[in-house]
Amino acid sequence: MSRVYNFSAGPSAFPESVLQQAQQEMLEWRDSGMSVMEMSHRGKHFSIIAEELESDLRALLAVPENYKVLFLQGGASAQFSLIPQNILNGKSKACYLKTGAWSEKAIKDAGAYCDVVVSASSESTKFTTIPDAASWAIDSEAAYLHYTSNETIHGVEFQSCPDSKGLPLVSDMSSNILSRKIDVSQYGLIYAGTQKNMGPAGVTVVIVRDDLVGHAPKTVPSVFNYAEQAKNQSMLNTPATYSWYLTGLVLKWLKGQGGVEGIEQRNIAKAAKLYQSIDQSALYANPVEIASRSRMNVPFILSDESLDKPFLAAAEANGLLELKGHRSVGGMRASIYNAMPEAGVQALIDFMAEFERTH
Amino acid sequence: MSRVYNFSAGPSAFPESVLQQAQQEMLEWRDSGMSVMEMSHRGKHFSIIAEELESDLRALLAVPENYKVLFLQGGASAQFSLIPQNILNGKSKACYLKTGAWSEKAIKDAGAYCDVVVSASSESTKFTTIPDAASWAIDSEAAYLHYTSNETIHGVEFQSCPDSKGLPLVSDMSSNILSRKIDVSQYGLIYAGTQKNMGPAGVTVVIVRDDLVGHAPKTVPSVFNYAEQAKNQSMLNTPATYSWYLTGLVLKWLKGQGGVEGIEQRNIAKAAKLYQSIDQSALYANPVEIASRSRMNVPFILSDESLDKPFLAAAEANGLLELKGHRSVGGMRASIYNAMPEAGVQALIDFMAEFERTH
Repeated sequence: MSRVYNFSAGPSAFPESVLQQAQQEMLEWRDSGMSVMEMSHRGKHFSIIAEELESDLRALLAVPENYKVLFLQGGASAQFSLIPQNILNGKSKACYLKTGAWSEKAIKDAGAYCDVVVSASSESTKFTTIPDAASWAIDSEAAYLHYTSNETIHGVEFQSCPDSKGLPLVSDMSSNILSRKIDVSQYGLIYAGTQKNMGPAGVTVVIVRDDLVGHAPKTVPSVFNYAEQAKNQSMLNTPATYSWYLTGLVLKWLKGQGGVEGIEQRNIAKAAKLYQSIDQSALYANPVEIASRSRMNVPFILSDESLDKPFLAAAEANGLLELKGHRSVGGMRASIYNAMPEAGVQALIDFMAEFERTH
Repeated sequence: MSRVYNFSAGPSAFPESVLQQAQQEMLEWRDSGMSVMEMSHRGKHFSIIAEELESDLRALLAVPENYKVLFLQGGASAQFSLIPQNILNGKSKACYLKTGAWSEKAIKDAGAYCDVVVSASSESTKFTTIPDAASWAIDSEAAYLHYTSNETIHGVEFQSCPDSKGLPLVSDMSSNILSRKIDVSQYGLIYAGTQKNMGPAGVTVVIVRDDLVGHAPKTVPSVFNYAEQAKNQSMLNTPATYSWYLTGLVLKWLKGQGGVEGIEQRNIAKAAKLYQSIDQSALYANPVEIASRSRMNVPFILSDESLDKPFLAAAEANGLLELKGHRSVGGMRASIYNAMPEAGVQALIDFMAEFERTH
């Protein structure tokens, strides 16, 4: 088989040019005499890679100077526990918006450290909507308001930055970071696993405002203490060096795509095209209310469930992989992150039309 | 520059054949149509990689069936905090042997969760010895005895498994795992970062006996809870997939080297040769008592400190890199892990002799 269009929800497709560069540099990076994965993290070569990683991410997201940018391990799921531990700062409550499977997990894990106030939930619509902001019950005593900007499994996405009524706003952006413009200054903390829009699995980005840093109790492991890691440029211990390097390559690719603004236009076009073809068909349907549809993850069902297996088999035969929906919601899901080319989305649309015609 | 001999203490040299295979498979793994880093961790292709990773490690170390093998994130440093949290099991004390910089860090971090009993320390010899076992003060009320099997910075190594007087024995084997035969059944828990003898930075191996699993309080983040991860084959959340794959390649390479037994013979020969050349020289000296010398990290000083810089510059010009000792002890350090070929050690020895002759 040659390379396919890979619609995996994450880990997910890479830009092919990034893979080619990594391939070329595998045995020796520039004139260093060694592979990036063999370099001391404190050496002169890796220092260049580390500095460019941070400065490129800061540039792409226009991160203000009063924010730390950390590159940690453990995934966004580790942050479900580490955020309350690091930033509750003596408070006993935190507010959470419940909009799908990932915010549910964040809520469950935070409960070990504080009282969780569920300010709003779209569970009654089976997570196919974003609750109306007018109905949110935000507790002014809470340490922060947490939300999941894009729900990978349910395919719902916040289209703008929520109003946290003065609380520090915390967002899990694992699945849509760098896919659309955001104003970092409206957030207290942004976090994201890299494995969807930024790089390989194994790096967790935490962007956190200075005033939220430095309040962790000593029971927080030092490598997960934001203040400790900030003081050490995320190198309190050996970081995941090769994964940092790969993430850096993806960021440089993104700069070449016109940055976040450039890619956002392409993401809008890709998603619009795919939703339109679903809405116009008699076989396929997307359950999410139009205003809350995700640009990154497009779930859809076939009106005849018995066609699921033939659909997946035929898609695979056509080089369109990983289209099976998450087991908790069934059906199909096409994840179309930054690295998915428009040609891949068009190939999927063409295939779906052909499958509908013949079934 | 072409590829050099890289004596970095970690991340460190890879077998070149492993890099070549990774290079070849970068754009497509077997006939999967995608790079390993693009694969869903729950898909059929990555499942093969994950299963072989665990079974190869179990085979290489002859891990008994009543032990879990976990592949986590955060590095061995994260485990400094996570081990007491996971296995104290209501006890208030843990015993630690203090034999160098890394056991000192483990002691410091454990102090946030329990009373640390320092059962023995070689601080008075500047960590150039292993304290005599007859002098160890092991508290039978403690939850476990922790030791660092090889101290990367000070270059001291336990030559056999310590007697823990019935306590579960816990060992940080980050820098000598898979370099010498061990009997896993003598341990309660073994942990190691991968970046020295096993793979790239970003994976932490935890091998833990069943009876020590399942006693973590709910404040332990679920992705660092041994029981939760064991139930989920270390995939409670997205693992560092590409780093797992690279680690798996190194393990297969090691099997081709005759496994741990085969590589141990080569490690003995490499270290003996290097120590002998140091001991026979008038310019170089190693401060560690002979019986406790590390086979992995060979620190040495030059009798004339003003020659340090010229030594490092000349070494680099000869393709011998990363020989500078850790700043806390000064001098030089040659890390000669599994992947360092005998030819690399011989090249270092020849260079050192030539440098001594001309200086």
